[in-house]
Amino acid sequence: MRITGIADIVVPISSSIRNAYIDFSQMTASVVAIFTDVVHDGRPVVGFGFNSNGRYAPQGLLRERFIPRLQAAKPEEIIDARGIIDPAKAWDVMMRNEKPGGHGERSIAVGVLDMALWDAVSKAEGVPLWRLLADRYNNGQAEKTAWVYAAGGYYYPDKDIAGLQDEMKRYLDLGYRCVKMKIGGVDLAADIKRIEAALKVVGGKGENLCVDVNGRYDLDQALACGDAIAPYGLRWYEEPLDPLDYLLHAALATRYAPPLATGENLFSMQDARNLIRHGGLRPGARLVAAAVRAAWRPSVRAQHRGRLGAGRQRILSAGVRAVRRLRRHVCGGRQPRANAGHSRSRLRGQECVVCGDEAADGFSAALICD
Amino acid sequence: MRITGIADIVVPISSSIRNAYIDFSQMTASVVAIFTDVVHDGRPVVGFGFNSNGRYAPQGLLRERFIPRLQAAKPEEIIDARGIIDPAKAWDVMMRNEKPGGHGERSIAVGVLDMALWDAVSKAEGVPLWRLLADRYNNGQAEKTAWVYAAGGYYYPDKDIAGLQDEMKRYLDLGYRCVKMKIGGVDLAADIKRIEAALKVVGGKGENLCVDVNGRYDLDQALACGDAIAPYGLRWYEEPLDPLDYLLHAALATRYAPPLATGENLFSMQDARNLIRHGGLRPGARLVAAAVRAAWRPSVRAQHRGRLGAGRQRILSAGVRAVRRLRRHVCGGRQPRANAGHSRSRLRGQECVVCGDEAADGFSAALICD
Repeated sequence: MRITGIADIVVPISSSIRNAYIDFSQMTASVVAIFTDVVHDGRPVVGFGFNSNGRYAPQGLLRERFIPRLQAAKPEEIIDARGIIDPAKAWDVMMRNEKPGGHGERSIAVGVLDMALWDAVSKAEGVPLWRLLADRYNNGQAEKTAWVYAAGGYYYPDKDIAGLQDEMKRYLDLGYRCVKMKIGGVDLAADIKRIEAALKVVGGKGENLCVDVNGRYDLDQALACGDAIAPYGLRWYEEPLDPLDYLLHAALATRYAPPLATGENLFSMQDARNLIRHGGLRPGARLVAAAVRAAWRPSVRAQHRGRLGAGRQRILSAGVRAVRRLRRHVCGGRQPRANAGHSRSRLRGQECVVCGDEAADGFSAALICD
Repeated sequence: MRITGIADIVVPISSSIRNAYIDFSQMTASVVAIFTDVVHDGRPVVGFGFNSNGRYAPQGLLRERFIPRLQAAKPEEIIDARGIIDPAKAWDVMMRNEKPGGHGERSIAVGVLDMALWDAVSKAEGVPLWRLLADRYNNGQAEKTAWVYAAGGYYYPDKDIAGLQDEMKRYLDLGYRCVKMKIGGVDLAADIKRIEAALKVVGGKGENLCVDVNGRYDLDQALACGDAIAPYGLRWYEEPLDPLDYLLHAALATRYAPPLATGENLFSMQDARNLIRHGGLRPGARLVAAAVRAAWRPSVRAQHRGRLGAGRQRILSAGVRAVRRLRRHVCGGRQPRANAGHSRSRLRGQECVVCGDEAADGFSAALICD
């Protein structure tokens, strides 16, 4: 199996929604196609990948750094013993000559190609990716269901509380029980009104509602919000603080007892490991939320093949096998519950339960998770 | 003062040198020119900026994210009370709609523009940048000298120990007393031979030699190298470990007593603050080395205007004023000692004492520091 060509394009994915930190008015996504010499049914196998949200415009990185390295690799450098492309080996090739530290946009560029490589491999093998991963890394075992939730509740222009409730009702009509909404974009009193309005829609049960600050608060704000929402027993309180401020997360965790979630904006194994080491996370849901999100990101695929550590750090081991295990654990074979009979279009605008990215127009959670 | 246009180009800066992590064979640099409506001597004032080493190809980020935001800004959003462009306000405009976390390539893209903005402002004011910064932030006080060193000792193809010694001698002939060499690219025994050869050239004085691992070692290697070089009393032992592995730095610092240096590959205030908090740095030279390098980087310019903290954290405060103070402290008015009477070409290939980046063909330390 050889790569015969790589193409990349940029597509607009703009929308009018916003969260506490950014709007999506100018956003684009890079999409790549990796062509191979494997032919199925008279047509060459092509793997596709895309990525963007918030870290857009990696085209220069793709075209000057990562695609040329992949194209210049000798076939034996990126195939396994059976002659099939090995995405892990391809990753090593792409990361040649990359300096340590500063994991940001390049993880997006490499991630786009990583996704396309896995897509190509699973197509070449003639099986869905979840089956391929389950067979390779979990003795063929795959679970049949997965817990999912619907992420929404953005600050749409002119959207009032009735609009927020209508949106949440639509998610319930689609079959979701748990929904997530953005907070932190208005003052706390206004957000509390929005939270209480959303809670009414989900039957007053905090376990069916998550809130997401997208890293907007300082410590005082995070503590104040935590104090205000603690009585609701929400399923989780997400990204209350700057994602790299581990110490403040630890401080908040001493006072806010229900689950916290973070990790969506950590782009490397090193950053995720620092969160585990310094973020004061407690075992259980709050740890898993961070670990799964971080480990799923392609950028977490580390250059160093570290041995698995003990206890909590095991879950975020540097080894690619650990990342693969987490992928399998979360996605391999689990069918998103909401996906049964749902078209991709019906999933638009929702958030991938694994990587936490919102699916924008033209992309879907199913595309990420299937 | 208004921006009338922004141009960017990509130029090759490839060379055959390498360090323990990367080679420079494919490297490019982005160069920007910011045109203004200020006219001096019949010609418009144009500010120039460049950046690259290791984080090249930010053109997509420049063209899709940062340049359009700067161009779309209303004039009053980026000027001060006197009508002169305020680079700090321009930075806020450029960082609009950027998500928190993941500080990597975008700091390069914004840094290129930041450099050009400061260049334009100092030209518009008709004074060198060091004078402008001293006047604005240090009551006009500026020091007349600065300590500098020559960074070299790469692993050139086929370069042997005699070649290394010849290179170090050339630096001494240029007037340098202190030199830096790369290690970590070969086994420790071979590096020790190279270190001892370089020490002979600098009169056997460890205070005149620094070594730089560029983040290559794991803890065992870093400890072993530390044990081996400790007797030499080198001026500093730089980037022994992954720059984001604060815990391992702290562990190494418990055993290696002479100065350690790191921070070159931290691209944000948040990362630098984590190094201070979690890296086990001791006060003094090792702290300053990290702080100055990190604080100089344009990426350290934080969005949040935090108040200055106490003690060690003061030096890395989130406030832009703190960053400016550090710039002034290091560069404002201090003339690189080696720069007296030296042309830029004579400084090529050396390292900026402030930001730690090596000057490549066509660029010079003087261009960074002056």
